[in-house]
Amino acid sequence: MEPNPSSSMHSYCLEISPMEVHKVVPPPHRSTLQKLKTRLKETFFPDDPLRQFKGQPLNKQWILAAQYFFPILQWGPNYNLKLFKSDIVSGLTIASLAIPQGISYAKLASLPPIVGLYSSFVPPLVYAVLGSSRDLAVGPVSIASLILGSMIRQEVSPTHDPLLFLQLAFSSTFFAGLFQASLGLLRLGFIIDFLSEATLIGFMAGAAIIVSLQQLKSLLGITHFTTQMGLVPVLSSVFHNTHEWSWQTILMGFCFLVILLVARHISMRKPKLFWVSAGAPLLSVILSTILVFAFKAQHHGISVIGKLQEGLNPPSWNMLHFHGSYLGLVMKTGLVTGIISLTEGIAVGRTFAALKNYQVDGNKEMIAIGLMNIIGSSTSCYVTTGAFSRSAVNHNAGAKTAVSNIIMSVTVMVTLLFLMPLFQYTPNVVLGAIIVTAVVGLIDIPTAYQIWRIDKYDFIVLLCAFFGVIFISVQEGLAIAVGISIFKILLQVTRPKTVILGSIPGTDIYRNLHHYKEAVMVPGFLILSIEAPINFANKTYLKERIMRWVEEYETQKDEKQQSSIHFLILDLSAVSGIDTTGVSLFKDLKKATENRGVELVLVNPVGEVMEKLQRADAANDILKPDTLFLTVGEAVAALSSTMKGQSSSHG
Amino acid sequence: MEPNPSSSMHSYCLEISPMEVHKVVPPPHRSTLQKLKTRLKETFFPDDPLRQFKGQPLNKQWILAAQYFFPILQWGPNYNLKLFKSDIVSGLTIASLAIPQGISYAKLASLPPIVGLYSSFVPPLVYAVLGSSRDLAVGPVSIASLILGSMIRQEVSPTHDPLLFLQLAFSSTFFAGLFQASLGLLRLGFIIDFLSEATLIGFMAGAAIIVSLQQLKSLLGITHFTTQMGLVPVLSSVFHNTHEWSWQTILMGFCFLVILLVARHISMRKPKLFWVSAGAPLLSVILSTILVFAFKAQHHGISVIGKLQEGLNPPSWNMLHFHGSYLGLVMKTGLVTGIISLTEGIAVGRTFAALKNYQVDGNKEMIAIGLMNIIGSSTSCYVTTGAFSRSAVNHNAGAKTAVSNIIMSVTVMVTLLFLMPLFQYTPNVVLGAIIVTAVVGLIDIPTAYQIWRIDKYDFIVLLCAFFGVIFISVQEGLAIAVGISIFKILLQVTRPKTVILGSIPGTDIYRNLHHYKEAVMVPGFLILSIEAPINFANKTYLKERIMRWVEEYETQKDEKQQSSIHFLILDLSAVSGIDTTGVSLFKDLKKATENRGVELVLVNPVGEVMEKLQRADAANDILKPDTLFLTVGEAVAALSSTMKGQSSSHG
Repeated sequence: MEPNPSSSMHSYCLEISPMEVHKVVPPPHRSTLQKLKTRLKETFFPDDPLRQFKGQPLNKQWILAAQYFFPILQWGPNYNLKLFKSDIVSGLTIASLAIPQGISYAKLASLPPIVGLYSSFVPPLVYAVLGSSRDLAVGPVSIASLILGSMIRQEVSPTHDPLLFLQLAFSSTFFAGLFQASLGLLRLGFIIDFLSEATLIGFMAGAAIIVSLQQLKSLLGITHFTTQMGLVPVLSSVFHNTHEWSWQTILMGFCFLVILLVARHISMRKPKLFWVSAGAPLLSVILSTILVFAFKAQHHGISVIGKLQEGLNPPSWNMLHFHGSYLGLVMKTGLVTGIISLTEGIAVGRTFAALKNYQVDGNKEMIAIGLMNIIGSSTSCYVTTGAFSRSAVNHNAGAKTAVSNIIMSVTVMVTLLFLMPLFQYTPNVVLGAIIVTAVVGLIDIPTAYQIWRIDKYDFIVLLCAFFGVIFISVQEGLAIAVGISIFKILLQVTRPKTVILGSIPGTDIYRNLHHYKEAVMVPGFLILSIEAPINFANKTYLKERIMRWVEEYETQKDEKQQSSIHFLILDLSAVSGIDTTGVSLFKDLKKATENRGVELVLVNPVGEVMEKLQRADAANDILKPDTLFLTVGEAVAALSSTMKGQSSSHG
Repeated sequence: MEPNPSSSMHSYCLEISPMEVHKVVPPPHRSTLQKLKTRLKETFFPDDPLRQFKGQPLNKQWILAAQYFFPILQWGPNYNLKLFKSDIVSGLTIASLAIPQGISYAKLASLPPIVGLYSSFVPPLVYAVLGSSRDLAVGPVSIASLILGSMIRQEVSPTHDPLLFLQLAFSSTFFAGLFQASLGLLRLGFIIDFLSEATLIGFMAGAAIIVSLQQLKSLLGITHFTTQMGLVPVLSSVFHNTHEWSWQTILMGFCFLVILLVARHISMRKPKLFWVSAGAPLLSVILSTILVFAFKAQHHGISVIGKLQEGLNPPSWNMLHFHGSYLGLVMKTGLVTGIISLTEGIAVGRTFAALKNYQVDGNKEMIAIGLMNIIGSSTSCYVTTGAFSRSAVNHNAGAKTAVSNIIMSVTVMVTLLFLMPLFQYTPNVVLGAIIVTAVVGLIDIPTAYQIWRIDKYDFIVLLCAFFGVIFISVQEGLAIAVGISIFKILLQVTRPKTVILGSIPGTDIYRNLHHYKEAVMVPGFLILSIEAPINFANKTYLKERIMRWVEEYETQKDEKQQSSIHFLILDLSAVSGIDTTGVSLFKDLKKATENRGVELVLVNPVGEVMEKLQRADAANDILKPDTLFLTVGEAVAALSSTMKGQSSSHG
């Protein structure tokens, strides 16, 4: 079976003579229903999730289905002590990060600090049962917290009406979860793909700056701070309240910020020392709490968290708002935070799955994250997802399965039950420093530079997201960047490339004249390649552009004393689809070229295009055997002999 | 220079040995600025309007520029008596159509009938100077009238506040013109391309039915008629007011409707008898007016137009509303009617230009139509454009230049100055019959059937537009259809085709295995062709789909006892572009395939793709010379020899 290349080359020479030409055949017939089925499958089930069920006995199918919906059943039975040892180390490590971050992020969302701990208890348990990633560390994250807080704050004040604010936060979480789970169930996961890398890099950098600016409140000890998020109002609020700056707070904040940033730097340099940055936040909390307690610093201008209630998550399903005037707000907040947190969770899951070489099913993950938030919303949790920084620590600490999430959850539970009084004297300034350290990592300058180098348009998208977030608002910055990204796609479709092909001397290969300098035009032929599906949005453009190629050639020809065009060859290899408007392009082109004495020749229309051209009325005109070829080479060979025949009979 | 195909074939055999392989070279270097310039030119100036100016003396350039902006200077100097004879016939013919249609369409827009005549006087003169189509007959059209009327009626009643209604109509016309001219000046004409053929066919059929239903008011003589447009409210209004039906009106309406439809039918059958349908409306108006006058039918339940003011267009710039609470309404109305009437005008212009084989510059036409409406709005005209039915008559009557528009305009002027009293007794029922006859032509069932045959998805778009217009509203029906069309494009981008290629035996040609039944797979190779630009919206899908191809092949291989894959060849010929996210696809794929012991090979990346891959960090990994080839054939030939070498050294 092994092909012998030299012999196949040889046979090629023997079999192909210029007169033997391969026919373009219509694709095998399939009914509309079959085509629809294939199309729907490719659109919504590209990963073919039912593949593994095929040909299995019913009994086995049930087990597979249960394992499909509850991945814990898949890895659970093989779980052993060795895995557990790894998981307990990583679980405790991320718990030490989750507790201070949970409290900090809850404050970022203008929620009571304890809600951040609640949110680090229930969701990880749910995810451990439903999720398929082995590295994801679940809990509150900075950007979703920021957006949730800022969107609800637009209509309700967290200081004047804290109960309503909390209710709306839980309701938004419910809708975020509902939305996430629906995307997964309806297999519309590709919606999050519309957040391109450039958009996300710009957005996250902007959000990091916004979040850091918000921390100036606790880092400087300002009591009267703006409720707005933008760069300008925050900075003006900071510098109009210089009399409120507290030197004790600033000193403490500065020291802990330096400690945390140095710890982060050490871990970045040597990934083996991951525990340095993982342990630093908890250590800072403990240290600062002791300091405050020892020096009674709360009486010297350093604000502290204050009394926190002991006990596990109280139920909150009775706090969900499904009616009334705030329904629109919570649905919108749920939608935005849902998409953002989903994007982060899926991206993190995929990154680590690729590192360890296992599969993460995007749609299934969406259902897992969605259910986690729905359940969370009725147990006093706000929006959670897989956090990038904590998942990285989890991975570095050697997490093997989702059991590390369970360990973390148990640790948080112990904290909630017994350790809450210890946080009473924890200063807010340390929480601010922890947040700043965490979000600094969101500013990814090397990738931004890489984007600048590869694609300038993408870099513009990045800048729009960045400046939109900083100067307008988090949601609008994101919306602008997504809009520009989609506009670029539409522009590519509306203005597809047409490329002029030349023959590479001594071969049968035709390539872009402007790319391959050795390629030369074949006299009498204008060979164009259309590089996009032809549809209503680009038909007019394509017609005008192709006719301009013809005109330009005719103009140049007089200068260079070339022979005039006899044939316009359109290479359709790259035209992957066509619609009814697109079909009429060939009718129009045929007419326009005939008026100039040029014959239109089509090369290699692919299945769908061939089929639709055949069904059009103009088929008889366009799909004549002497103007339809399988390759450009064959078309040129066959037609030049005709041309020669004609010119010799004329002469 | 004439290539001898057989000798070139021969030389191909001699020169290509399996070891000699053509290199993929990076495209010639161009700076970012050069690339930006090319890109902008291709996007906004695909027709290269400045081409004709190149290399001309300054003096000549001025003349060309004047001719460019005022096409009348181009054809005017060569105008002669012979052309004038043709134009006077066609001008008078379209005038006989324009006068009754003008009055009717103004009523359709709930405007005073005389505004329809004003609108047939000034705009044709403006167009004659600025427009580049020789066949376009300019004036009010049914669909734009319908939309204008229905949109303004949503907020202002034409019976309770006729002056405000008129002011808003003129202001909307101003914004429509401003919008149209801006599209042309900013060279954003491609926006109207987003109205696909399917959308327009469905939309126009729906609008024709809505317009005809509105005529039931005058055809049945109902006085209390609904102000809504939908199918359901109109029919319920008709059958709840059966007591208002007037048999005299119904009889008269029925007779004239039959006459007009028969006349239309005759002209459709024999295009030479175009004057039958062209003259019928005016004849019906004259005949019915005489009948009413003779029988004093206005006292027997037949409603008549009533007294019309004599004289030319009064100025109306003082009636334009640029402030206050209705600004949003008039801008929205201007936008929608502007786009719709522009689409009709451009499409009509292009159709007849193609018939007579001359060029119509879309962007220039937009400026002409836009200025015509801006000037019209300050001379008591409402939205006008090139009307399809009248332009067809114009063309059939032998119009040679825009002078026929001037003749029509002069005829309308004479009517306005001297003949207005004659219309006093014209019955409304005849105007209704004229409108119905005119819009019947908008229902294009053969094209709809053709769309059904060629593309089922397009047919769904058509149905959405049709039912949306009939049951929801004219604007929303249109918006839904455009939305679905764009969604289809985005879906194509998100779910691009990947095709598995096989070699056609005895040749170097590789084609889709599922299309060409004779194509066979090459053992040890999986050859895939990606048929779309790779970007953020499809990278994840492509990665999953390609890995599924690999897995499927491995599964099948065991069944068919084929050899396993050694090389995954990706043919990138059809990948016309790539972005930063897309570049990472190859990095991910390389990793995923390496884990399976498969080597990733790229074939023929085109200029832009090659360039961006080179700039990416992973370039050294991906663009190795032994995994990058110019054609699939060469890749297979070169790699099979490696494979053989390996297996023989192993054995």
